[in-house]
Amino acid sequence: MVNYDFYMDIAISKAWEFQALTLPNPSVGALILDSNNAIVALSAHEVFGGCHAELSAIKSAFIYFNRNRDIETITNPFEIYDYLIKNHNGCFYNTKIFVTLEPCAHSGKTPSCAALLSELKPSEVIISHRDVNKFASGGIEILKSSGIKVTYGILENKGRDLLYPFLCICNQASFTIYKIAQRLNGSFENGIISSRNSMIYSHQMRSIADNIIISQKTVLDDNPLLDSRLVCGRAPNVIVVGRKNRLHNGLNIFKANRKVSFVSNLDDISISGFNIIEGGSTLFDAIKDRIDCLLVFLSPNMQQGRNFVSDFNGRIIHSMRIGKDVVLWIQKD
Amino acid sequence: MVNYDFYMDIAISKAWEFQALTLPNPSVGALILDSNNAIVALSAHEVFGGCHAELSAIKSAFIYFNRNRDIETITNPFEIYDYLIKNHNGCFYNTKIFVTLEPCAHSGKTPSCAALLSELKPSEVIISHRDVNKFASGGIEILKSSGIKVTYGILENKGRDLLYPFLCICNQASFTIYKIAQRLNGSFENGIISSRNSMIYSHQMRSIADNIIISQKTVLDDNPLLDSRLVCGRAPNVIVVGRKNRLHNGLNIFKANRKVSFVSNLDDISISGFNIIEGGSTLFDAIKDRIDCLLVFLSPNMQQGRNFVSDFNGRIIHSMRIGKDVVLWIQKD
Repeated sequence: MVNYDFYMDIAISKAWEFQALTLPNPSVGALILDSNNAIVALSAHEVFGGCHAELSAIKSAFIYFNRNRDIETITNPFEIYDYLIKNHNGCFYNTKIFVTLEPCAHSGKTPSCAALLSELKPSEVIISHRDVNKFASGGIEILKSSGIKVTYGILENKGRDLLYPFLCICNQASFTIYKIAQRLNGSFENGIISSRNSMIYSHQMRSIADNIIISQKTVLDDNPLLDSRLVCGRAPNVIVVGRKNRLHNGLNIFKANRKVSFVSNLDDISISGFNIIEGGSTLFDAIKDRIDCLLVFLSPNMQQGRNFVSDFNGRIIHSMRIGKDVVLWIQKD
Repeated sequence: MVNYDFYMDIAISKAWEFQALTLPNPSVGALILDSNNAIVALSAHEVFGGCHAELSAIKSAFIYFNRNRDIETITNPFEIYDYLIKNHNGCFYNTKIFVTLEPCAHSGKTPSCAALLSELKPSEVIISHRDVNKFASGGIEILKSSGIKVTYGILENKGRDLLYPFLCICNQASFTIYKIAQRLNGSFENGIISSRNSMIYSHQMRSIADNIIISQKTVLDDNPLLDSRLVCGRAPNVIVVGRKNRLHNGLNIFKANRKVSFVSNLDDISISGFNIIEGGSTLFDAIKDRIDCLLVFLSPNMQQGRNFVSDFNGRIIHSMRIGKDVVLWIQKD
């Protein structure tokens, strides 16, 4: 039952667990089948600068094949690469490697995955989406020229949805999400809504975001910290939107080491990098045309209270469970 | 990387695709690994009276192992059973079979799965949840007494969530869901909300439901058919809830061959069998204490309009994508 869609789907789902957390790198997943078609590794690119998905999966499979954990203690991607080149002994010759994105041809913060694969010589590399980054693309040609069978376009639409945040960064130098935490009936005020696991994921995202954009009303009413304390990460810069600047130094947003700016006109915000907008229905209505994604943390409860009242049409590009919530990634239609 | 949780999770997800459609039977999934740990079959119990998940998976694996499609044309479960007993030739000796529920000991509409497995002798049967039905349980003992290794309790909580509708039927002779079709912001009126695929799934459920419970206001305002025309199925009986009976023969609900009854007091409804309540916020508030599950079809759009205003606490037991929507199965807390 070697169905390429089936295995690619597993690799894509794995990658989504770390969506946006790898920016400005893409989210990527990889899965390896041994010569008998047993799954021997499943990995994702988890953090910018860390191992690419292919390298992580190859490392896991190497440990499994060789019952040798020496490589486990190596964390530097270039050292892992060197170790594998020296020690692989052909153990990948009859494997199939599924990757959600064309392996990179480029050596930068991490070594070139295509170059590694062309040494390890799996029998086939199966790819969902071709690379679109001119610095990193060309991987398929490297693989083919070293005699490896390459199949691409498997679940390509799902592969493109996975890449969407990265594609926004590539094409417009920014990726902007509007984050909503709400209950099942749409109410979004009064009390804690999301589970702790959802908050940890939010803080992970904040720790790599360039800016949080928020209304002055929320800053004054709720006095939020807007940091990433749950993951001990850095605090993103804050752009506060309001009519007249009423911010004062006693507010919690000034406690972290970061830039806080104020704009009275949304058009004055020059959106660049990775931006998270946190707000209610009014801010959403004003800024919805400038967002790339809606990220909804939905808790399975109902409580009376205001809900969003905009007109909006979207497309779910992924849904996942986090803690007791469901998280929906929704691309604007 | 033979991780029992990983494979059981795949089997559980497969079974959820047919949740409630097998009632009064449980939803069950099965996955088979060959001697090399490659996945060779993945199946679910799809319809009451049809093949159990194990039998479907075993049939698929048999075809794969023997490159012999003769069995494909056999659809009667007893005939499949007999064919396998005669022709298996030991091809399952080194397989591992994952089943979300203890294989049945009982021979009824279909043959006993435990008896079949004890003949096929896989090396191991891995089970999520033990059976709770006294007529069908005892499967583990049958397997063990024929020398098969049995492991159970794998992802047991997820296995129990999968069984929840069946457990309601076993314990209280009824399973009642409140179905909501709503937009992201909670609005549930004006226009078509759910995608066609979601409607097909709803109609599949209606086709096996005993009753639809609905408010008289909805019947008079919308004049719905409440049938299962999209799947050419039977129309469930309708229980209309209102103050004073204003139903008349011209209404669409009277077009199908079924029983329509009227109640003015919710306490007069004797809930039994599989019941689907379709309604808005008012009916929900009145009847929410008597439901077992909330089933929410959520479309990724927003539009102004009324939302639910109840207090409700739930737990998501499964989420899945259907068409452009997300469908949430929520157990009342």
